[in-house]
Amino acid sequence: MERLKEAIRREGRYLGRGILKVDSFINHQVDPAMMMEIGNELARRFIPSRPTKVLTAEVSGIAPAIATATKLDIPVIFARKSKPVTMPEVVYHTQAPSHTKGKLVDLMVSPEVLGSNERVLIIDDFLASGLTLKALAEIVKMSGSELCGFGVIIEKSFEDGRALLSTLGVPIESLAVITKMSDEGIECA
Amino acid sequence: MERLKEAIRREGRYLGRGILKVDSFINHQVDPAMMMEIGNELARRFIPSRPTKVLTAEVSGIAPAIATATKLDIPVIFARKSKPVTMPEVVYHTQAPSHTKGKLVDLMVSPEVLGSNERVLIIDDFLASGLTLKALAEIVKMSGSELCGFGVIIEKSFEDGRALLSTLGVPIESLAVITKMSDEGIECA
Repeated sequence: MERLKEAIRREGRYLGRGILKVDSFINHQVDPAMMMEIGNELARRFIPSRPTKVLTAEVSGIAPAIATATKLDIPVIFARKSKPVTMPEVVYHTQAPSHTKGKLVDLMVSPEVLGSNERVLIIDDFLASGLTLKALAEIVKMSGSELCGFGVIIEKSFEDGRALLSTLGVPIESLAVITKMSDEGIECA
Repeated sequence: MERLKEAIRREGRYLGRGILKVDSFINHQVDPAMMMEIGNELARRFIPSRPTKVLTAEVSGIAPAIATATKLDIPVIFARKSKPVTMPEVVYHTQAPSHTKGKLVDLMVSPEVLGSNERVLIIDDFLASGLTLKALAEIVKMSGSELCGFGVIIEKSFEDGRALLSTLGVPIESLAVITKMSDEGIECA
């Protein structure tokens, strides 16, 4: 994924307070060819985990989750942050703090789409604090299905997300690791 | 797209008040193989319009927009409904009523990702009242770029969306047309 790392170094912007802006190719505008390459690579790394469903959180997780699920040829579920009228009364519900929104957000999944006999791969754009990914893992636990891994596009190695998630005992994969961010630039391995 | 129409007839649920639930394969869980087929077909219909960017609204538009943009090999922008800290102060901003949320929602696009020299194809999951699609067209107009078409997965022919959008003089394509919904079932052509 050298192409991804080059895009991060070239187009990523450090906004201060730990926030990396990658709006031009991941969060607001998406480069579909690169996103499919991301999905193919995440799928390749998780084939040994035999996932049967991909779970992500709307909004920015949807693109990499669909790309990964396309390659694995399994369904993808996106946890909703607000409840549409089409959702049933009783849902799996957790909350996680949003780094870019500055507040707690709800995460809801209908039991209609997540049963108790699945092997669930959780995909998101970022691994930073790990709190959103951990909230998604709680939803998997509520469902009775089995968690089989976490895959993200970008990991910030200087936050504690990997340590938090590693207690769950499943593989954690990231395609680009940000080791340092400052006004001078983004260091990416 | 007979496969799509069969899925609508088999898995679609009429919830009353004009609302069709397709959560199991479009809005909450996505079947990636069918979504890629949807994207291929929408792309095929709009190749003559020579789009250079795809625009959609988060959340449910993202999957068909990415699938279409992948086939066309052009970037896709998703209009945000709430403003992340990564967005600049000045954005293209409109509002549209949400059928499933029962309130006005904001739609915001950063000028950083939508310049004035693009040919923009708008993609969404549904064409019902047409108000969300029209709001996205207003964003295209604000940017100075040219609108070149509207493509959706499902059209409800008994609402006035197509008439509203046809005043804009660009092609409107839908892959499945719901002609009638009732407790007895969904009629889909």
